[in-house]
Amino acid sequence: MSYPLLERINAPGEIKNLPASDMPALCEEIRQFLIKSVSETGGHLSSNLGVVELTVALHRVLDFPQDKLLFDVGHQCYTHKLLTGRREGFAQLRRKNGISGFPSPRESDCDAFIAGHGSAALSTAIGIARAKKLKNEPGKVVVIVGDGAFTGGMVYEGMNNVSKLNNLIVILNDNKMSISKNVGQMANYLTKLRTDPKYSHVKAHMETTLERIPVAGDALVRVLQGGKQLIRRGIYKSTMFEEMGFQYIGPIDGHDVGMLTHTLTNLRGEQYAPVFLHVVTKKGRGLKPAEENPGEFHAVSSIDLNHLTDPELSPKDSFSSTFGCALADLGDDEPRLCGITAAMKYGTGLNFFKHRHPGRFFDVGMAEEHAVTFAAGLASQGLLPVVAIYSTFFQRAYDQIIHDVNLMQLDVLFAVDRAGLVPGDGATHQGIYDVAFFSNVNIPIFAPANYAELRYWLTYLVREAHGPRMIRYARGGENPALAALPCTGARYDVLDPVDGARVALVSYGAETEEIIAAKDLLAQHGVQADCVKLTQLYPLPDGVCDTLKHYDTILFAEDTVRTGGIGEQLGFAMQQCGWQGEFLLHAVDNSHLLHANVPELRKDQQLDAAALCTDILNALKEKQA
Amino acid sequence: MSYPLLERINAPGEIKNLPASDMPALCEEIRQFLIKSVSETGGHLSSNLGVVELTVALHRVLDFPQDKLLFDVGHQCYTHKLLTGRREGFAQLRRKNGISGFPSPRESDCDAFIAGHGSAALSTAIGIARAKKLKNEPGKVVVIVGDGAFTGGMVYEGMNNVSKLNNLIVILNDNKMSISKNVGQMANYLTKLRTDPKYSHVKAHMETTLERIPVAGDALVRVLQGGKQLIRRGIYKSTMFEEMGFQYIGPIDGHDVGMLTHTLTNLRGEQYAPVFLHVVTKKGRGLKPAEENPGEFHAVSSIDLNHLTDPELSPKDSFSSTFGCALADLGDDEPRLCGITAAMKYGTGLNFFKHRHPGRFFDVGMAEEHAVTFAAGLASQGLLPVVAIYSTFFQRAYDQIIHDVNLMQLDVLFAVDRAGLVPGDGATHQGIYDVAFFSNVNIPIFAPANYAELRYWLTYLVREAHGPRMIRYARGGENPALAALPCTGARYDVLDPVDGARVALVSYGAETEEIIAAKDLLAQHGVQADCVKLTQLYPLPDGVCDTLKHYDTILFAEDTVRTGGIGEQLGFAMQQCGWQGEFLLHAVDNSHLLHANVPELRKDQQLDAAALCTDILNALKEKQA
Repeated sequence: MSYPLLERINAPGEIKNLPASDMPALCEEIRQFLIKSVSETGGHLSSNLGVVELTVALHRVLDFPQDKLLFDVGHQCYTHKLLTGRREGFAQLRRKNGISGFPSPRESDCDAFIAGHGSAALSTAIGIARAKKLKNEPGKVVVIVGDGAFTGGMVYEGMNNVSKLNNLIVILNDNKMSISKNVGQMANYLTKLRTDPKYSHVKAHMETTLERIPVAGDALVRVLQGGKQLIRRGIYKSTMFEEMGFQYIGPIDGHDVGMLTHTLTNLRGEQYAPVFLHVVTKKGRGLKPAEENPGEFHAVSSIDLNHLTDPELSPKDSFSSTFGCALADLGDDEPRLCGITAAMKYGTGLNFFKHRHPGRFFDVGMAEEHAVTFAAGLASQGLLPVVAIYSTFFQRAYDQIIHDVNLMQLDVLFAVDRAGLVPGDGATHQGIYDVAFFSNVNIPIFAPANYAELRYWLTYLVREAHGPRMIRYARGGENPALAALPCTGARYDVLDPVDGARVALVSYGAETEEIIAAKDLLAQHGVQADCVKLTQLYPLPDGVCDTLKHYDTILFAEDTVRTGGIGEQLGFAMQQCGWQGEFLLHAVDNSHLLHANVPELRKDQQLDAAALCTDILNALKEKQA
Repeated sequence: MSYPLLERINAPGEIKNLPASDMPALCEEIRQFLIKSVSETGGHLSSNLGVVELTVALHRVLDFPQDKLLFDVGHQCYTHKLLTGRREGFAQLRRKNGISGFPSPRESDCDAFIAGHGSAALSTAIGIARAKKLKNEPGKVVVIVGDGAFTGGMVYEGMNNVSKLNNLIVILNDNKMSISKNVGQMANYLTKLRTDPKYSHVKAHMETTLERIPVAGDALVRVLQGGKQLIRRGIYKSTMFEEMGFQYIGPIDGHDVGMLTHTLTNLRGEQYAPVFLHVVTKKGRGLKPAEENPGEFHAVSSIDLNHLTDPELSPKDSFSSTFGCALADLGDDEPRLCGITAAMKYGTGLNFFKHRHPGRFFDVGMAEEHAVTFAAGLASQGLLPVVAIYSTFFQRAYDQIIHDVNLMQLDVLFAVDRAGLVPGDGATHQGIYDVAFFSNVNIPIFAPANYAELRYWLTYLVREAHGPRMIRYARGGENPALAALPCTGARYDVLDPVDGARVALVSYGAETEEIIAAKDLLAQHGVQADCVKLTQLYPLPDGVCDTLKHYDTILFAEDTVRTGGIGEQLGFAMQQCGWQGEFLLHAVDNSHLLHANVPELRKDQQLDAAALCTDILNALKEKQA
């Protein structure tokens, strides 16, 4: 394939050298480029196909980096990257040292901000627009917000603070769904704005008619005269966006690049208020299967364009689906069980629960705070809600976990998906804080290392545990070495202990794979080591210190943050029990994990078997010296 | 004073035994009771005076505990407590073992849920209402939400999920201000609903007129006919609450107990949708100075009714005002400096900054998430925002701290007010998590122990530090013993070291008072101890382990959570540096701190000097044995 128009754009602004009449063809080239490129590398597809024309129009009109473009969220930035000199980078999209799948100020000064978590970008945009005002800087701040983001509360906090920032343009990218089908009243409302045929028709007639109303007349006219302002507001200001202080424009066709360019050109001029431009797009536009099933093509691994089903998105073989199926089974015997997701029905595997128990399934939208407090309300009435959210998004509900669930010790089970290192998406999606912040709050934490353990401990937590409790598991499937471990039902296991081993390698979850491999490496160097796998992380299981006391050297490895993690807690516990050996800690240094695959991330963080082995060998050498 | 009507109500439901005609007089008695009682004990005054009639009407109509009443937030629950058998308890309001100033399910089954943090109660209410549906239980769930809560995003997440819960009644307690003057577009919007005289007038006439429109007629009528539905929506559904799926009623006078009772009786019947009842009240109603200055009377310590100024609320002598004044001074020389508060302009002392630098001051409402991300946006453009929020409310912005500030290492200074133990308010307001969750994220933490240190380190953090950084300080003023300490500018200090001391007592911030006292107690027992005060908590200051290595016994005391706190971190660091002494850790056990004063809280948590001393003596005795 060749991309004659696209290939003429190799730096920001060069798109303006092309004639306007080429834009539809350019959009088509971009679309073909994205389909081909993402099918090879994997990445976010549907959302990027939806915003091709919008992004092209923005680049025709705006000047980067003086103008600022923000995304909510950032996985729809591919066309923006293509138009700012990063076309070549797409061969290494989301790979280590390749370009990020999200906006990245490290990559380009045309990327104003990172954007991995939803509903937040309007607040960023307000900050940037306000800074421009304070610094007397020209330029517009444009933020593209998906309709899904309007299920998250933070966007309303932003709307409440738009003030009179007339250098701010909010574009609602209304594709009728966010990641999964949109939920809630806001979705209904947007549909109404979009679909009411009377709306634009009556609006046109009414304005003319209102102008014609004489000053005096019969009863009807008098009332109308008095209410003229009100009626005008009723029609023109019937959108809540106007009530929030915006100048509302739309809805307009998000695939008409000419009209978009025209509209944005007008809006670039002086405005009297922040602008809210309502653009209707089609997710997956241009790729039939993606148009029909945008959820499946939200994020894809590399795909075969001739056999368009994505094996990764609804994997039969993953911790998420194992969780979802097991929970559905538990729901058969436990009528109190409820399943709650924040816009990730498929991602969390809760679709299986929904299928079996639709009345007890709740998708609350991208609203993690509400999800947790809603669960607290259910639990206060004797139900048993399970809140399944990705680790990185649970960060948003920290206060609700503390205040609404933990203070009253309510019966809520937190299912933390995508816990630990996460490939591809980069720093914004790592699941590296949950262990620390759940243990701060004193909530028991369980970390099964394979499917059998996940089923066992999930059953235990549903049927036998009380109060707030948490279970965490990695993205993707079980590692073969860990799948082979038997589920003993113990809260920690010494795996195949060796007589006389003086070294203990301790870990939990997916990282256990590396200590098992490190044990083998050490054996090759003549060092006997035992592997200890924790299943209950917090509080530390009874007896684990007594077990570990007998070793001279303990190495602890975890794929979450060092400060406040289990390693520090265990090291301190060993100190408290009077043990005087050497404790080596490998954890995620509180630095910033760029996009890469899991083995690469482990290597970068010295969490791979080789690094663990080397550390032990050095420690033993030093001890001998 | 006597309260003949009030004294006839000694249990839930007994209010219904009184004739309706007595209700205005009962309300007057309640108001007098509250003024007298709170003036003696301290507590929340203005908000409670505002909801007397509303609460009385609710108790006339609802049946507790079958019906559920929730508050957003709970400090307006006093009349509810008075009417549910807790009148006697008001003598010990907010005192240890006395009644709580917030709803407390421990106290009464008429208190459905705790409620210390704003914007959350609608989500709780939806959970409870949904649980009632799942369990086929009768009864209404009523949630009173202050207008201030509508500046927080979580309430919109709730509104987006009201679905068709027709057992839910949301009452907007619109008192035109939350704690400080309300901010933002939502406040403007509510004012419009409240004040537009045309609204109700035109509404009445219009409906009649619309009904009269014939099927055919002249152009005007034809258009109107086609747009009839639209006009009706324009008028009747012009509130965004209707757009969100509510049946909207109001605004009605919140001090007309008869009308409130009548309206609520109607609403108690079967409804087709969740109800949104807009009630207008006056904060501080019935106490002139409180009506005029509700902010000052939001929360009061005991006050002299003859000299109505509250010494506590705008204290000249507090960490908050010291911070605010120092920041205002720094702003003179540092044009990049911005001050951001989340509805706590006075509480944080930022009023001083606002006074001097109004263009760089931002009150974003009760929107902690927005506050932090807005700051990130400002910082990304080279400004230096200072975000001042109480410790307990910073929990709400944990994800924004991680994702929007820390990942890009932006120049944002977090000022954590009310850090550590907080008297009176109880479990929901303790500042006990900030040290753990900021250090999880690897953000440097400073904890000045007196005003001089606060000024010194604030200046350092504004002028010399880079990236995200945090400073924390206690509620109220400096302790005299700590005020006497010189500000050395060191990141840790050994206070008056004693030759040959084998014991080190380590702490930071307000708790340092107790280790100084413990040192004296130990001296009385012939034990020499040194006090070590940390000012930089995270990362642990260079050299502190080397200093501490020379002691045999280290006791660490901190008034924040144990797990992930500095004590655990220091204990682990000592272990890592090969020290083999005894490390004793006193911290807040991750349990639930009820309302009490600070000395009582310290005693409960074994953080008082006596407990520290005893622990050391026992440890030394054991060592000798």
